[in-house]
Parts: sequence; structure tokens; C-alpha cells
Amino acid sequence: MRATKVRLLLKYSKCRVESFRRLSDTTQQRFPVNRGDFNRLNDGHRMYFQQLLGNNRILTEEDDLAKYNKDWFGFVKGSSQIVLKPKTTEEVSQILSFCNENRLAICPQGGNTDVVGASVPVFDEIVVSTELMNEIIDLDENSGVIVCQAGCVLENIDKKLEASGFMVPLDLGAKGSCHIGGNVSTNAGGLRLLRYGNLHGNVLGLEVVKANGEIMDCLSTLKKDNTGFHLKHLFIGSEGTLGFITKVSLQCPPRAKSINVAFLGLQNFDKVLKTFRKAKEDLCEILSAFEVMDFSTIEFSKDTLGITSPIGNYPFYLLIETSGSNSEHDADKLNKFLDTVLEKHLALNGTLATEPTKVNVSTNIHRCIQGGIN
Amino acid sequence: MRATKVRLLLKYSKCRVESFRRLSDTTQQRFPVNRGDFNRLNDGHRMYFQQLLGNNRILTEEDDLAKYNKDWFGFVKGSSQIVLKPKTTEEVSQILSFCNENRLAICPQGGNTDVVGASVPVFDEIVVSTELMNEIIDLDENSGVIVCQAGCVLENIDKKLEASGFMVPLDLGAKGSCHIGGNVSTNAGGLRLLRYGNLHGNVLGLEVVKANGEIMDCLSTLKKDNTGFHLKHLFIGSEGTLGFITKVSLQCPPRAKSINVAFLGLQNFDKVLKTFRKAKEDLCEILSAFEVMDFSTIEFSKDTLGITSPIGNYPFYLLIETSGSNSEHDADKLNKFLDTVLEKHLALNGTLATEPTKVNVSTNIHRCIQGGIN
Repeated sequence: MRATKVRLLLKYSKCRVESFRRLSDTTQQRFPVNRGDFNRLNDGHRMYFQQLLGNNRILTEEDDLAKYNKDWFGFVKGSSQIVLKPKTTEEVSQILSFCNENRLAICPQGGNTDVVGASVPVFDEIVVSTELMNEIIDLDENSGVIVCQAGCVLENIDKKLEASGFMVPLDLGAKGSCHIGGNVSTNAGGLRLLRYGNLHGNVLGLEVVKANGEIMDCLSTLKKDNTGFHLKHLFIGSEGTLGFITKVSLQCPPRAKSINVAFLGLQNFDKVLKTFRKAKEDLCEILSAFEVMDFSTIEFSKDTLGITSPIGNYPFYLLIETSGSNSEHDADKLNKFLDTVLEKHLALNGTLATEPTKVNVSTNIHRCIQGGIN
Repeated sequence: MRATKVRLLLKYSKCRVESFRRLSDTTQQRFPVNRGDFNRLNDGHRMYFQQLLGNNRILTEEDDLAKYNKDWFGFVKGSSQIVLKPKTTEEVSQILSFCNENRLAICPQGGNTDVVGASVPVFDEIVVSTELMNEIIDLDENSGVIVCQAGCVLENIDKKLEASGFMVPLDLGAKGSCHIGGNVSTNAGGLRLLRYGNLHGNVLGLEVVKANGEIMDCLSTLKKDNTGFHLKHLFIGSEGTLGFITKVSLQCPPRAKSINVAFLGLQNFDKVLKTFRKAKEDLCEILSAFEVMDFSTIEFSKDTLGITSPIGNYPFYLLIETSGSNSEHDADKLNKFLDTVLEKHLALNGTLATEPTKVNVSTNIHRCIQGGIN
């Protein structure tokens, strides 16, 4: 099913963006997709789910279902007739086991912030939402390892970590609504992947329910765990096709005390690459993001969101973020780096934000570009 | 076969170390292991390997075979009759395909620096050594991604990276002889795992030959690669049981310009944990190693290797390494940290090494402890 979606997206990605706004049509009406040989939801199935979850954790009204059937971009629209909201791994296991035995297709869903149409049903799949699986189970204040349910919102995990001096190792535009289970199942990257690497390195353990309801406990919390086969990696980035992630154990780095953001304008891509090498050399351990945008991207965001470049027009722009533990040291490194790239004419112009508000404004330019595409 | 080895090691780990020195006996003579139903090497097999590799890349004399049959600890001893030294992936593929068709057991071997008896044959398995697969294929000086054959020695990769301002993200006592293929297949950690994470995060791609000779190309060089299933992780840490690693693509961080090492003496484990938290807070982005040793460990090394604690006797010792891009900033952070832990009586005594020679001496204390166990 996922493969069909990917092919669809590739096929239609060249169409005009506007054409995807007609959300009165469902995915199956607009695209040449064929429903698999699955059973359709009947009263017996509904009754089973009601007995399992109670009426409060099942949605069946069209108005309630709407937001679970369409994606964030308004790109695709499913026609699921039911949303289930389990709270525990055991409930997920029972749902999956029942659906497997009754040939009912399901669509796991986290915060539904996905931008490639992969988190909503294509047809009438049962949506199994992690919305109510939002418990933070444990935080080890020595190791910085947090264990939580898959439905925890990324920003809530980060807030919990803040009090103990840690932070989540990924930063996404959708952090206020995306779920950690969705982040892991899509191997989400984000702005700070450059510094902290991807989730294969940061996820220490997973608890997963297989399609037949079997619970796999790979929920290690040990950073140097080398025992047995490392099966958890199969579920990182495989988008729910191999299993339903129910719990996550995440290694979190110390929280940065000092964050600076520089926004630069450059003449060509060769200078972008040279500036990247210089940034790795001079900023090294404090470099936390290095994002490239070209003129068209900023123009596109200006037209759509009214966001303009703070430094005028250039063929290329760089957003460079540093995160460190000592503001004086960080400022010293960043100033020396900026002096060098301007002196060597690698960058033509630039601005520096060190106050938290300005830092947020600068990083939001980049985060909003994604929104600008919508 | 690997499972048998693990059970053996667990069973006999409580025996006196001396008992493992009697290397006149082979593993199968000393332990209750049963050879699988594999064929034995005959002249026809030898002829095939000679035609494939020529006489210079095959060892069959007992003296030549000796070092491939015993492990670094002198813990186990196999009785392989032949060592094969392929140079290319295609040769590995042909060897594995032939062995698979002829029911011949094989033992992949890298630098044979393994310390749990897993890199040598248990019986008469054919040793397939990566010794001659030592070509560095590519280094991208922008991204720091290096691609090389599995038999490259870790230290040689590091030397190649040094000229471009990068370093390998793992530091092992055996770096002068261990092979990157062995590092990956055992998911080797080492002193700097704390900073750079394990190989699931740092390995971007692998080329692997399956037992039937099929070549799997997962040799991506893209850090943010999110396409398809991430099958390469199955081979990281599975010790050759699922496939023979032939090529590795590795993400390498910028090389540190400043390295400092502190060696501290502490009163109890609670203070070790508190010092760890303080180190993460104060040293944060420059903290690259934090290794704990207790009194018995240092005493053991003193008796065996003549290495003594440079600061007298304490119940616990810490080796703390910082790596950064600015020696002044690093020294400032480390001095403040040390002042605090001494003032707060977290540490009772300590010494600091900033010159490269002293740094090497200090880190060698820890590296040699492993040797002291032998």
C-alpha cells in the first residue's frame, strides 16, 4: 500500500500544486488505485472495538473522522469509517490481532503531520491513532535516556527533558503536534540531523506490535547494547509496514545553553560548499544546523507566506545554527567564522541572531518554507 | 555456531584465566561442542580456490594457519586447514557461492582482534580473511564520508582522513590492526562512543555478500537517506551470521584540534554518577570519553602490565577526554569543570594532560587494561 502511495506521489509531483486542493474528491476517486482484497467494516467489528475501548475512544461520525482522513498538505484524502484510540500496547495488540484475523486493513496514525500523504488511509482502512498513548514512562537523569509511549508529542518530550538539562536530538517544524512514534517510523530528520545524526543512532529501543498482534520487546535503554540481532532498526523508517511502534527509548543530548543563528547570502553553490567545509572546521562541535535555500525557495515563501529575506536578494542563502554550553566561546567561534567567510568573499552578506526571539524568527523562516509549498 | 560460542564463553567465564592458556588443545577438544553436518575440505575444493585466487592468496601450511586459528586472548583455537584471501567483492561472492553449494562452513575474519573468541574457527571452517581487501575507494571532502573495502585497518582509514581534517568516529585499543569490516560486523564501540554514538548512526552504507553469494548493494553515502527499508542495520553487529561485509561507507566527524585528558580519583560510585552529570553539563559538546575504572581493575593492570595509577589509590578512577576545535576554549571549560568537582568534593584528586604525549599515556592506561586481562 505504501509502495502505491510513493508511486502516486512521484507520478503526480509535477502537477500544479493547486490541483491537489480539490479535497472533495478522495484519493481513490482521483488516482488509479485498487483496493486490496480486505473485508469492509461491519457492525460485528464495531461491537468488538466498542467492547475493547468503550465509546469514548472510537470515532465514527463523518465530522469527527475528517481530520484523520486528510493529510496536512491537503494532498490526499481517505474514506475511513472508524478511528480507534488505544491507550496501551495490549490494546494495540488486540486491535491488530483482531484485524489480522478478520482481514481488516489498518492505517497507523501519529500526529498526522506527514507531508507525503503516507499517514492517512488510501481507502477505508481503520485508523489506529496513537493520540492517547502519550505517557512519558521514565527519564534517567544520569544517562539522558527517556522512555515514552509512541503518541507523545515531540515538544512535550522536549519540555519534560528541559527540566533535567536534556533536549530531544531532533528539531522539526511540526514538533508541536508530531508524535515520537511517527518520527521514528518515518526516520524523521530535521534541522539538527547534521549534529545529532538520524534516529538509527538515537533510538536505543523500541516496543513494537506486529500485524498479527505479537508484541516485540526491543525496548533497551543501554547506549552500548550489543546483544543479539538489532531488530529495532527494521522498524525505524519503514513507516508502519512491518509493525506498529508502541514505545520508544531515546538517547537525548545535554540541552544547549547558547544558541546562535547566522543567515548568509552567497553567490553560487561552489561557495556554499566551501562555506560548509569552513563551518565544519571552525564551528566544529557547536555546529548544529546548516541549511541551504536558493533564491526561488525564498521567493516562493515570500509570495505564499509574506516571509522575506532579512538581507536582500542572493542566489543562495544559508541558515547556520550553533548550539553550545558557553555563550562567550560560541560567540567567539561564530564571529571568527563569519569574519573569515566575509573576508574571503565566500559570503556576500549576513546577519547574526543571538537573542532567543531573533533566533526563533530566523529558524522559522526555514521551517515555514515547508508550509509555503502547501 | 556463534550461539554455541556465546554459551561456551558464559559457561567458562568463571574459570581461572590461566586455564585458557593451554593452547595445545583445540576448542573442540576442550569444550563439549559438536561439529555441524558440513563437508570436509578435499583436493577438488582446494583446486577450485587455487584457480580462483592463485597460490599466493591461499594458505594451507600449519605454521601459516596458526595465527588465523587462535584468537587474541589465546582463549580458543580452531583447526582450519585453509585461509583464503580474496581481494574483491566478486571473489568473496564466488567463494561463498561455492561453499554454499558444497556445504563447506566458513569463518569470516578481519584483523582477528576480537576478545570473545568469535573471529576464529571452532572446527575446520574455511577462514575467509579480509586482509587484502584494503582499498580506500573514495573520500568526499565536503561531507566527510569515506568509502572503503572491509579489510582496511581502522588506523589507516584515520590517517587518510587526517589530511582532509576528518577522523574516524570510533577509537579502539586495537585500531592499529582491527579491520573496519570487523568493527561494523561486531558494532564495535570504543572510548568515543559517548560522543559519536555507535556504528548504526555512523555507517551510511554497506555492501554485503550473502551466504549464497548474492551481493547486496546498500552502499549509500547519503546521511539523510530515507529510502526503502534500512537493511544494512541487520549486518551491523550480527557478526557475519547474516552476511559477509565487503565495503563500508562511513560518516566521519571533523578532526579535533585540541585533546585533553583528565584522570580523577573518586570515593564511591554515587560520586562517579554525579561527576558524569556535571561533565555532561559543563563539558557538553567537547566531552568525548568518560571511562570508569575501579580499584581492582587498576590493581589488576598493575600486576600484569606494571601500569600504576598516576594519582595514588582510590576506590574509583575516571578517565575524561575532551576533543574540540579551540584549545583555549576547551582548557577554560575543563579547568572550570575540574575546579567545581574538586571544590564540591566529587573528586578527591586528579591530573590533567594537555600535551599529546601525556594524553596518549593516559588513554593507554585504559586501553591496556583490556590487555591486562589476558
